[in-house]
Amino acid sequence: MHVMILGAAGMVGRKLIEKIAREPLAFGRPVTRLTLADAFQPPVPESLRSVSTALTVDLAGAGAADRLIEGRPDLIFHLAAIVSGEAEADFDKGYAVNLDGTRALFDAIRQAGLAASAYVPRLVFASSIAVFGTPFPEVIPDEFFTTPLTSYGTQKAIAELLLADYSRRGIFDGIGIRLPTICVRPGAPNKAASGFFSNILREPLVGEEAVLPVSDNVRHWFASPRSAVGFFVHAATVDTARIGARRNLTMPGLSALVSEEIEALRRVAGDKAVALIKRVPDPMIERIVAGWPTQFDAERASSLGFKAETSFDEILKVHIEDELDGRIA
Amino acid sequence: MHVMILGAAGMVGRKLIEKIAREPLAFGRPVTRLTLADAFQPPVPESLRSVSTALTVDLAGAGAADRLIEGRPDLIFHLAAIVSGEAEADFDKGYAVNLDGTRALFDAIRQAGLAASAYVPRLVFASSIAVFGTPFPEVIPDEFFTTPLTSYGTQKAIAELLLADYSRRGIFDGIGIRLPTICVRPGAPNKAASGFFSNILREPLVGEEAVLPVSDNVRHWFASPRSAVGFFVHAATVDTARIGARRNLTMPGLSALVSEEIEALRRVAGDKAVALIKRVPDPMIERIVAGWPTQFDAERASSLGFKAETSFDEILKVHIEDELDGRIA
Repeated sequence: MHVMILGAAGMVGRKLIEKIAREPLAFGRPVTRLTLADAFQPPVPESLRSVSTALTVDLAGAGAADRLIEGRPDLIFHLAAIVSGEAEADFDKGYAVNLDGTRALFDAIRQAGLAASAYVPRLVFASSIAVFGTPFPEVIPDEFFTTPLTSYGTQKAIAELLLADYSRRGIFDGIGIRLPTICVRPGAPNKAASGFFSNILREPLVGEEAVLPVSDNVRHWFASPRSAVGFFVHAATVDTARIGARRNLTMPGLSALVSEEIEALRRVAGDKAVALIKRVPDPMIERIVAGWPTQFDAERASSLGFKAETSFDEILKVHIEDELDGRIA
Repeated sequence: MHVMILGAAGMVGRKLIEKIAREPLAFGRPVTRLTLADAFQPPVPESLRSVSTALTVDLAGAGAADRLIEGRPDLIFHLAAIVSGEAEADFDKGYAVNLDGTRALFDAIRQAGLAASAYVPRLVFASSIAVFGTPFPEVIPDEFFTTPLTSYGTQKAIAELLLADYSRRGIFDGIGIRLPTICVRPGAPNKAASGFFSNILREPLVGEEAVLPVSDNVRHWFASPRSAVGFFVHAATVDTARIGARRNLTMPGLSALVSEEIEALRRVAGDKAVALIKRVPDPMIERIVAGWPTQFDAERASSLGFKAETSFDEILKVHIEDELDGRIA
């Protein structure tokens, strides 16, 4: 089968590529062709080099979507996006990529299907819990309305609506998945407001200090990078007849306090690791985080077989296995 | 103030124009300029001729939105749309007008605001309960999610999201209002699946027969044309600070059975009127209607002062006053 990943150079894209390299039958059939596209040059693992094409492309560029769909991929992962902060700062760029780029992709599939019969690929779209905006209940149910408070969340919510309508019309077979905050996020500390959730685990595990800018009793919604990849693989293969018309699903996750993160770190790496967490309250980050969802009842996705971690001990175990070769400082 | 009505030739548009003609201070300040636009030539009442400009325009046409906004209307009613059946039958046309046309309008306002400071008009958008799709609870609450099952409903839900984001960014001061089924709809019987709800009242009141294609215990959600105009006028003047970021509101309405319509008709016009209703079951219409919402808890809109009828007797009274000069056959 021909698999295409848009946004292949991002963190989840890279992990998905690694998964395909490790498990060539992850989608049931062998991947005989792999198209990797991103605004930045995507990485291609050695073992996939013979079947892969890596493209540097701007999804919002004229004709870009049509060229991507020319090769009639059977399975499309659409992970490409201008991230939240940039979409808020640059109105035009956010709408151009996250809305117009997504719609161009969807319409390119439609045109391909009109031109050649029976082209109806599976399309898995990375949505976000940013489609929700305060105020919301402590535990957000599957049927709660989407009232985003950012342009990014608005663009994701619109893409979800388009995905459902195009799927209903049989243009493609789409699923939108709303990811929890990915933790432990690999790589260097970044300046995202959510970065500290990962930093306070990742850095102490390698003997480095990390800053905690919020109080210990902040609650948030998490899943590991391994679970995120698992969501995408499951979405690629699940029987969509079971999903019906409501194609956008909040993924399961772990609702946990910062203090639970810290206690899991203590169990795994001891007091000396915990001592590397420096408390430096940042009222602005406190305020931003206070506007984020803390827990979902992801009943629909769970009943469809999507799975995430159920404790921070598991999330740490995944990180240590996948990123640290099983070794901690 | 300069008021613009897009979709001025439609039923609600015409009634809104008549309201302005009758009550020049309906919006608090005198209407010194009235721009009426539609794909069809909109009507201009005699008394408004001196302040009105009537334009025949395709909102989806190149540059159309920019030209409409050139005159910097202070208050914009956006009622223009490709209706449900046509948007479903003609994919491209529905998206071109209901999504792209709406976005072009919103972006034209944004460009006007960037070019000249302090241009932030009030914008009232006609949305629809078609943003909801089955299955839903018997009474749909304000926080229920929007999962439309038509392209029309999808386009309305997307426009709602854009309206909220553009309002949040201060580009305009928007309100989206989701109208109940308008009843009694004036004019000739039409072929819309919902037409019979009005036909079985309007026709017998003038001594004509009407067909009832569904059972008496079908429940639906109604408001009179007068209430619909009232919603738009109230939306034009309500303090949006009270609404907050969630700019799209399900309007209040009357949840009633077909049998309640018929009994109200009997009270007003007697058994001879009721005898003009011919029961001709139509399984296709039964099936379509079964997928429609039957009742909402429109608590937010009600608390903001939006009002509808609370009985079919009232709805009939409005029809007899507004359409029949108080006389029945």
